[in-house]
Amino acid sequence: MPEPDSARPCATDFLIASKQCEIDGLAHFLRMGQLVAAISNLVHALQRERGASNVFLGSGGERFAEPLTDLCADADRAQEAFFVALKQVGTRTSGVQGGARLFSRIAHAVHGLGDLPPLRGRVRELALAPEQAVQHYSDLVRALLAVVFEAADSAMDPTISAMLVAMFNLMQGKETAGQERAVGAAGFARGGFDAEQSRRMQHLIEAQERCFEIFTGFADADTLALWHERLSSTDQAAVERFRRMACTGLLPSSLPAEQADHWFQVTTERIDAMKGVEDHLEQRLQSLCEEKLAEARERLARHQSLIEQLLDADDGQGESFMVFCATGSQGDGQGDVPERYDTEGVSPQLGRAIIEMVQTQAQRLQRMQDELNAAREALEERKVLERAKALLMKHRKLQEDEAHRLLRQMAMNQGKRLIDVARAVVAMADVLGQ
Amino acid sequence: MPEPDSARPCATDFLIASKQCEIDGLAHFLRMGQLVAAISNLVHALQRERGASNVFLGSGGERFAEPLTDLCADADRAQEAFFVALKQVGTRTSGVQGGARLFSRIAHAVHGLGDLPPLRGRVRELALAPEQAVQHYSDLVRALLAVVFEAADSAMDPTISAMLVAMFNLMQGKETAGQERAVGAAGFARGGFDAEQSRRMQHLIEAQERCFEIFTGFADADTLALWHERLSSTDQAAVERFRRMACTGLLPSSLPAEQADHWFQVTTERIDAMKGVEDHLEQRLQSLCEEKLAEARERLARHQSLIEQLLDADDGQGESFMVFCATGSQGDGQGDVPERYDTEGVSPQLGRAIIEMVQTQAQRLQRMQDELNAAREALEERKVLERAKALLMKHRKLQEDEAHRLLRQMAMNQGKRLIDVARAVVAMADVLGQ
Repeated sequence: MPEPDSARPCATDFLIASKQCEIDGLAHFLRMGQLVAAISNLVHALQRERGASNVFLGSGGERFAEPLTDLCADADRAQEAFFVALKQVGTRTSGVQGGARLFSRIAHAVHGLGDLPPLRGRVRELALAPEQAVQHYSDLVRALLAVVFEAADSAMDPTISAMLVAMFNLMQGKETAGQERAVGAAGFARGGFDAEQSRRMQHLIEAQERCFEIFTGFADADTLALWHERLSSTDQAAVERFRRMACTGLLPSSLPAEQADHWFQVTTERIDAMKGVEDHLEQRLQSLCEEKLAEARERLARHQSLIEQLLDADDGQGESFMVFCATGSQGDGQGDVPERYDTEGVSPQLGRAIIEMVQTQAQRLQRMQDELNAAREALEERKVLERAKALLMKHRKLQEDEAHRLLRQMAMNQGKRLIDVARAVVAMADVLGQ
Repeated sequence: MPEPDSARPCATDFLIASKQCEIDGLAHFLRMGQLVAAISNLVHALQRERGASNVFLGSGGERFAEPLTDLCADADRAQEAFFVALKQVGTRTSGVQGGARLFSRIAHAVHGLGDLPPLRGRVRELALAPEQAVQHYSDLVRALLAVVFEAADSAMDPTISAMLVAMFNLMQGKETAGQERAVGAAGFARGGFDAEQSRRMQHLIEAQERCFEIFTGFADADTLALWHERLSSTDQAAVERFRRMACTGLLPSSLPAEQADHWFQVTTERIDAMKGVEDHLEQRLQSLCEEKLAEARERLARHQSLIEQLLDADDGQGESFMVFCATGSQGDGQGDVPERYDTEGVSPQLGRAIIEMVQTQAQRLQRMQDELNAAREALEERKVLERAKALLMKHRKLQEDEAHRLLRQMAMNQGKRLIDVARAVVAMADVLGQ
């Protein structure tokens, strides 16, 4: 046991540390917001490169050779910007909630991006099937989106958390729309969909709808209005007509190449419209983080100057400050300020001011925690669902959509909600030590 | 947009940052473990001081005047040790998960400790009813236990989290036992319990049982064995006989002072037995944190030297290291390592080794997250229950046990679980903006 220190700690130091933690967290999220914006752009570029590679491979190298070169250059520029944003986030571990998971996801994404040059080489050599190329690009996008998911999961501010949940689901929905575009383009170019390909289309449509449902549940009114406006300016009827053909396998007699081009065009418009909403949401997120950070800094400055003023006004007894804290007894931040003890040098004003500051901080954090729960639940359910699917994929050697169908089938058979069945699968794996 | 940086980030840097975050977190919990131990001792001292103050006030200053002086000195020493441990934790915000809430709780506890000198003054002057004094001490203990709760809530390691959940519930159960001792001592000294006092005893007994149930659910086998051993060496039959009298209000005809002394003695033995288990659990926690920290540091060192070895063995191509990362494409940390691209300077061994390290880290964090959920759920339920009670106390001007009874009554009337009713109360308050 070390020698007891003569200096008593002061409540206000810890109050200030509490506020400093909030500020550190918000500053981190300002940098994370820039990273999320860079990921959004990089993912968009990779989605376009994936689409063009798919057509290039599907046509045996006949089509899109030139656009592909340009799209690769675009993706390289987006990648550079991502690396710059990553440098801003850095590897400092201070103020990073859930840092271990976040950095682990970033490591995975950065590692995955190293695959890009050899992947492009194989595409150029026509050494891959279109589906294989799509799979590789999709893995990369998934690794990048996982970073956004962790960011959303670690936000401590409920408004930022809700906006990141909306953002993640919009990005994930857009990515699923991109996969739908690729699978559809291949099918229409081939001139047909077999049962497995139709099921895959069906799965991708449903997965998108789930994402957009959560997105609309968490996005602000402004973003939602833009979402409806942008989507209604695209040819949604054409998308739905093509989807019906793809899901039923009943294609018209027009030329496959024409159909594929038309499908690619209408789905690209739709995806670009989504990207516009994504950009808007990013800007909202950015200004929200800046606003919250300025607020938190202002609150801290106000409290610091209030504490100094109180000390100055306290009859010069500042040197025995802690005695003055000895005022008011309080339960759990609830209820009224109780009776005060007006004994030996205790200043009621100062004590009361401090207990009020401590309580305000505790109550604000409590309210934030309560509000966070809704956003956390949406993420938690997704996490459980993804984990259950991953376990089924691993143990039963299933594809993702097969795993999803199996879960849905189990839910229907057992008359339970999908999420409850997924929880049971994960719990089972925990017991089995998987 | 700033100028793109020429240096590509490297996956291994983020892998190491992820591990460093874990290490920072564990180092923080090692310091928190010492703080929790200091809180355990301080709470124990305050509980003894509260008991003696209660007797002193109840006897109109006739009894326990001398022991009270000694117990205050003990509490002062425990307080000094708490301040020393607090100094170790410091106000550094680095590596502190949930720092804002933790520091806010510490601010509240430190502020509350400032009340101790005037409170003691009022006890000595007999200027308080015994119940008022007990209430003040209980508020202080509650503020200290809230720090332990936040510590448990912010642990990222499932074993540490489980141990802190056990610890918090043991401390909370022991505190409730201390309140039971105080309420009982006053009643037996007075020679009777009215209906309200009997109900309060009943509430304190039930609250203890809930805490010990969670404690036994999360404690390790070793601690549990000690728990059963220590408790069975106390006079549990006498405690239960007194409890029956207090709850029914049917007291025997022996002298109240004798009864009070006997009650005080058997409940004190019981509480001291709990303290013994608490000390044991603290030591387990301490060595667990040290072990985990050593493990994490060793893992980091192993990975760092592995990375260096791989770079050295890689034909001196270390300067274009990132190209070597361009190997293997991976889904979500699930499934097998896929095909490799053996093109332009790519070293398959190095790429494979790195992807394996990244995956191992991701999978370990995922397993930890899965395992954490059980402990988190126990804390989450407590948080919701406490929050619902606090809201009812505030809005309906109820005492804590009345709020608890109201919740239980609502649950019975609606045929729901207590926790579901509590969730509904909290959700309602959120909607109402409370």
